[in-house]
Amino acid sequence: MEVPNRVYRDPVKRPVPKVTVQRLPLYLRCLESLPAGQTRISSEELAAMARVNPAKVRKDLSFLGTFGVRGVGYDAEHLRFQIKMELGLEEDWHVVIVGVGNLGRALAHYNGFADRGFQIVGLFDADPDKIGKSVDRLTIEPLSRLGRVVKDQNALIGVVTTPAEAAQEVAEALAAAGVMSILNFAPTVIQPPDGVDVHRVDLSTELQVLSFYLHRRQVAE
Amino acid sequence: MEVPNRVYRDPVKRPVPKVTVQRLPLYLRCLESLPAGQTRISSEELAAMARVNPAKVRKDLSFLGTFGVRGVGYDAEHLRFQIKMELGLEEDWHVVIVGVGNLGRALAHYNGFADRGFQIVGLFDADPDKIGKSVDRLTIEPLSRLGRVVKDQNALIGVVTTPAEAAQEVAEALAAAGVMSILNFAPTVIQPPDGVDVHRVDLSTELQVLSFYLHRRQVAE
Repeated sequence: MEVPNRVYRDPVKRPVPKVTVQRLPLYLRCLESLPAGQTRISSEELAAMARVNPAKVRKDLSFLGTFGVRGVGYDAEHLRFQIKMELGLEEDWHVVIVGVGNLGRALAHYNGFADRGFQIVGLFDADPDKIGKSVDRLTIEPLSRLGRVVKDQNALIGVVTTPAEAAQEVAEALAAAGVMSILNFAPTVIQPPDGVDVHRVDLSTELQVLSFYLHRRQVAE
Repeated sequence: MEVPNRVYRDPVKRPVPKVTVQRLPLYLRCLESLPAGQTRISSEELAAMARVNPAKVRKDLSFLGTFGVRGVGYDAEHLRFQIKMELGLEEDWHVVIVGVGNLGRALAHYNGFADRGFQIVGLFDADPDKIGKSVDRLTIEPLSRLGRVVKDQNALIGVVTTPAEAAQEVAEALAAAGVMSILNFAPTVIQPPDGVDVHRVDLSTELQVLSFYLHRRQVAE
């Protein structure tokens, strides 16, 4: 059997399309919810679980250098390992959160992060009333401590859950502290500081997508 | 000039690809952040703001029956109106939230919802200690009141922010109450009740996407 040229050990050279990257966490979740003892999965089965069409699943996985065997499918365990490697989830990432309102607090508690290898190592807020208070095992610290904590803890990811008006300044402070990627939950656009990736999460986006489909259903009825 | 056949007034017959639907909220946000007085926008300009390539912008907008004029671009105001129409954002949607922990509370406070025409009309929790407490102008109610509130308020959207183990049961209660769409923040898969759309938001997905790019950068260095 010929071994395909594109293998996961050499991830730098293959550009993986952004849409594929965005589906990998979904496939991983599906694979992790398989019944204990199921060792094989077909592209059709994975497609049904992920609600994606089977051809797309096969194409996405081919970017990992992974090809299912006709009539047999994929080795579920190996596929899970490959996706985790590709997503960098075999490493532990240290994350700081700036802005400890309800959302910051919700994220600090969110079990899904630790399960994925994202460990929250610092919580920061500008409000003197919050500083010194505890959330789980962490103490809320002032922004002046950001540089120290990011360095000591080797935190490469910063999560911004401040009000809109503070977001840009906080992003710059995170960049200065040495963070390389920022996840922005604040309802505003952040201009990425030099050398830093900024991804924005708009919690209303999903509701707008729901609204699209509801609207269609109503028009159709 | 020939008028294209596909116009927004007849939205039922044109299938809009899901990836396009998912980008429409992004374009809308960009259009809403234009400086006051800017009435025109080119596909290149919108593409740069949205960080999408210009050809994709033009294709996406063509599904709305909207075509820019070469050298002039799009009428920004009209485009904004069309996207809002397409997303059903010209209507007011009533939303109930089940599960008033930190995340439910964060969503109840989230300004981005009301700005988009999503009005929270009910908060529900199973915990007797929470029932009767207020969050902003709403009082947390027991699940037994779900049917009544959904009907009286004509709430078509339910947001699930419960622990994983309660999510399926809550989704079924929402469906029985008359909700047509569910946004699931609980860290589990919900089997969609009959006739109900379920969309899942996994807050760790975005961190996994960040991790992918960080991992690549580290391997490349």
